[in-house]
Amino acid sequence: MQPISLEALNAADRDTFVTALGEVMEHSPWVAEAAYAARPFSGLAALYQAMVDAVRNASDARKLDLIKKHPELAGKVAREGALGADSAAEQESVGLDRLTDEEFATFHRLNDAYGAKFGIPFIVCVRRHTKDSILREFARRLENDTAAERDAALNEIFRIAALRLDQRVEAPDRLKVTGQLSTHVLDTHGGGPAAGVAIELWEIAASGFIRLLVSGLTNNDGRTDKPLISGRPIPIAVYELRFGVGDYFRRQRVVASEPPFLGVVPVRFAVAEPESHYHVPLLVTPWSYATYRGS
Amino acid sequence: MQPISLEALNAADRDTFVTALGEVMEHSPWVAEAAYAARPFSGLAALYQAMVDAVRNASDARKLDLIKKHPELAGKVAREGALGADSAAEQESVGLDRLTDEEFATFHRLNDAYGAKFGIPFIVCVRRHTKDSILREFARRLENDTAAERDAALNEIFRIAALRLDQRVEAPDRLKVTGQLSTHVLDTHGGGPAAGVAIELWEIAASGFIRLLVSGLTNNDGRTDKPLISGRPIPIAVYELRFGVGDYFRRQRVVASEPPFLGVVPVRFAVAEPESHYHVPLLVTPWSYATYRGS
Amino acid sequence: MQPISLEALNAADRDTFVTALGEVMEHSPWVAEAAYAARPFSGLAALYQAMVDAVRNASDARKLDLIKKHPELAGKVAREGALGADSAAEQESVGLDRLTDEEFATFHRLNDAYGAKFGIPFIVCVRRHTKDSILREFARRLENDTAAERDAALNEIFRIAALRLDQRVEAPDRLKVTGQLSTHVLDTHGGGPAAGVAIELWEIAASGFIRLLVSGLTNNDGRTDKPLISGRPIPIAVYELRFGVGDYFRRQRVVASEPPFLGVVPVRFAVAEPESHYHVPLLVTPWSYATYRGS
Amino acid sequence: MQPISLEALNAADRDTFVTALGEVMEHSPWVAEAAYAARPFSGLAALYQAMVDAVRNASDARKLDLIKKHPELAGKVAREGALGADSAAEQESVGLDRLTDEEFATFHRLNDAYGAKFGIPFIVCVRRHTKDSILREFARRLENDTAAERDAALNEIFRIAALRLDQRVEAPDRLKVTGQLSTHVLDTHGGGPAAGVAIELWEIAASGFIRLLVSGLTNNDGRTDKPLISGRPIPIAVYELRFGVGDYFRRQRVVASEPPFLGVVPVRFAVAEPESHYHVPLLVTPWSYATYRGS
Repeated sequence: MQPISLEALNAADRDTFVTALGEVMEHSPWVAEAAYAARPFSGLAALYQAMVDAVRNASDARKLDLIKKHPELAGKVAREGALGADSAAEQESVGLDRLTDEEFATFHRLNDAYGAKFGIPFIVCVRRHTKDSILREFARRLENDTAAERDAALNEIFRIAALRLDQRVEAPDRLKVTGQLSTHVLDTHGGGPAAGVAIELWEIAASGFIRLLVSGLTNNDGRTDKPLISGRPIPIAVYELRFGVGDYFRRQRVVASEPPFLGVVPVRFAVAEPESHYHVPLLVTPWSYATYRGS
Repeated sequence: MQPISLEALNAADRDTFVTALGEVMEHSPWVAEAAYAARPFSGLAALYQAMVDAVRNASDARKLDLIKKHPELAGKVAREGALGADSAAEQESVGLDRLTDEEFATFHRLNDAYGAKFGIPFIVCVRRHTKDSILREFARRLENDTAAERDAALNEIFRIAALRLDQRVEAPDRLKVTGQLSTHVLDTHGGGPAAGVAIELWEIAASGFIRLLVSGLTNNDGRTDKPLISGRPIPIAVYELRFGVGDYFRRQRVVASEPPFLGVVPVRFAVAEPESHYHVPLLVTPWSYATYRGS
Repeated sequence: MQPISLEALNAADRDTFVTALGEVMEHSPWVAEAAYAARPFSGLAALYQAMVDAVRNASDARKLDLIKKHPELAGKVAREGALGADSAAEQESVGLDRLTDEEFATFHRLNDAYGAKFGIPFIVCVRRHTKDSILREFARRLENDTAAERDAALNEIFRIAALRLDQRVEAPDRLKVTGQLSTHVLDTHGGGPAAGVAIELWEIAASGFIRLLVSGLTNNDGRTDKPLISGRPIPIAVYELRFGVGDYFRRQRVVASEPPFLGVVPVRFAVAEPESHYHVPLLVTPWSYATYRGS
Repeated sequence: MQPISLEALNAADRDTFVTALGEVMEHSPWVAEAAYAARPFSGLAALYQAMVDAVRNASDARKLDLIKKHPELAGKVAREGALGADSAAEQESVGLDRLTDEEFATFHRLNDAYGAKFGIPFIVCVRRHTKDSILREFARRLENDTAAERDAALNEIFRIAALRLDQRVEAPDRLKVTGQLSTHVLDTHGGGPAAGVAIELWEIAASGFIRLLVSGLTNNDGRTDKPLISGRPIPIAVYELRFGVGDYFRRQRVVASEPPFLGVVPVRFAVAEPESHYHVPLLVTPWSYATYRGS
């Protein structure tokens, strides 16, 4: 779907408006219809708030209906290809459409337990997550009581809506829905940025399965030309940055041992706040290094 | 075989002496016989030097014969169980008796090339090595000329002999044949040693194959009760220390994110000098760490 | 004197041009006159280069005359108030107008030795220096032969001219005549920037005399609102940054000892390249810190 | 006074015993007399405990008398030379016999306020202190009520007694009355201990007055041959270690800037626990360093 400008939305008639935003809340165009009355919107944040308010002010029955409009996570619907286009793309991003039979069974079991307890589908903003973090979230939220869990479900629906709005609407302001992961390599042996260091970013699953996400080289400022992750939430996960410092110092003709004491330096860390900036630099000599959550 | 004291060796008759030390140089009791004349030995270093001198002063033919008495590395002899007891134990220590078919083929090919070029078996002091480092050594030494390679072979024979003497003879002095790998965890968040941190030491093969060597917990001084490796050469290899700092800080009730920014901290480094002391400490907070080759 | 735009200079007649730039090279308007022919200038760098070329292409006699137009450093002329306005401001910036009798005697002695050897005044671009570095420069250059020292003197004249042009002429491009000194405080105990940390920058003279240059507080990003030094060369000197981390952690209610292990953290470093960016951050917990030349 | 062995004390008659230990509690031989009954002592700790118990079990009047037997700190008595030999040596160690007129006036004023409130002399174990920390202690304890302050005074008397016993009596066990301050310089540019680094330890007074306590060179292990402070309590104070790393790297022929980015590295820290081990190492390259409270 093409992005639409906030200006155009402010000028649109009701049908156009609802057509554009009807799916921001899953299969529930009544939310956009209710928000329509609040036009014109001074910014994207105001539009988002109007849609959130429309839900909060709705009856419990409508709220429940909105919740129930969501598909099961990794559910039969997903396997059979009957998801909304947004939901399909979102579930795909985290690999929920490529589960092993075992993982599918686990999700199935959790979905059943959850459905039995709460009578609603389990909703989570998958673009903020990985399979591991969804499973932890699932287990954690199964402990909630019904009221708390309805709130939790609505909260996730709002997060999903914010991301959809942020993608779909062009506006001068942005919603705070994206994070950033960046790095920097400083050669404290030579006293300057380390250029040409090979960098890889891996996702480390609890199962031990690892997946290469990004690779590249540092530039003359010791950074990657663009952030390792940006323009989206950083999925809650364990990551490993790998820095090819052995090759770098070999090219600097630094006399060291062979094999070098430090070859590939792995830095493993977790992201817990998908909308934050994680700066994970490396200060390195052939014999030592330091890393930290920077800013 | 029972250790024997230097004192007993100094007092022994020729037969006893040669029986005790005849296999220090592979299937070549004449070396011990020649060294016998230099008794009494003031220490183990003197005994070792006498055996080395006996070889150095021997004719080229005898040197060549000594070299040829050594089995092929991972060779047919090894597979068929016809090695000397020492050689068998040494080859076993590095996994040369448990090669995959592919590895066996690689060794076979290198052995053939080496034999064709030099007419002698490839000799290396396996207790200083891993499969990876032996393969690198093999490739490197295939580039030697014949004279340099004979020297290299004798040098390895002397290293093997030093280790055998060090194990077999009790004496007040020791040969410098062992290294040490140790660690220390300092909690720079709390300002003291980190006790109870789970530590694992892994060997990381070039193939990606990894093997757990040691695991344990830090004591009240932030150290392991004994060094991770000691009393032997540290095999030339890439290692990874893994520190369970996430669990540690959770027990300290340090408020951090969930999942914690740092869960398991991997520190990957190579050992190039098997007879050295490698001290690889970790200075750590929930948000940062540093490591270095210490002393 | 008011800045003038490069555009205006390009459009000016000869007299206006020479009036504006006649003092860029001390008391030597002929340099501006010679450069006038090269109009129009595409940028400040081109103008600067034209003036440098005018000097380089002049006769030895004129070069010598240009050199001799410069006042003695901290000389009698300076004490008696007969310097050109630019020279007066420049010598004042480094404290050469406020010498103790002893310092005055030292400069006098060096000036005499220099004059006797080279027959010219000692010229140095004082805005890149401190008293200490000028004295080292003086001693170093007294070892030159005559030709090398004439080159050194011209080189300093060009540096002075570049700074004067950079201040006097408004142009889209700038000459590379300024450096920057900045800092950043990261709290690796809490996992974020340290806000509200008191910072002082001191100059540390070889005599032991110290002088407070800048003081301030870190903002929410752990930085000072503007660089500690910018918009000018950083004088070659030893500096000490002092960070009030004890008070900071006390405000964070971090339990530590009393007095705190770290109260005021001094970081002492030298600047050798006045036109570079020196970033000197602090990573700190109540029990540890690290600093480095960053980028 | 010559040390005496615990064995000799256990075998001594009452007079000898009391002569030997009568001054362990200032001018109060009755404490030693009371402790005599508890002979024989299994160790120094038992002897110390017997003397402490003798005081604790005494009447309030005797306790008060013991307290009052102590001289004023930096008082008129001290200036006029009428202190017991132990007290004189202890007050001298902290410089209380060399006060400026201003400092003398401050102590005088505090002594008067203290005397007026509590009617006893202010007692503090000066060997654990510096002038600065005594003044802080004085101000802090002036806030106590009478009962709490009597306890505080007795506690200090016991600390003084422990130090006196530890010096005077030879025994297999030692009282825990001493601390240790040590350092270590690791060259993380070269990958090993830094030998030959000039080290100075300074005491930094709140007044800005600084005093050199120890200086030396690191040995081949990067350490000083003996701890910077040991065999006594480390006085509560702010210290500065200064490391001559610029000269060190110049000798290593490391190419760096001139002047070097790091010349003399100052590490400033406070000691709050005189009986602890403070290990304050430096990890250093020409462009970076780290320090921490180690163990």
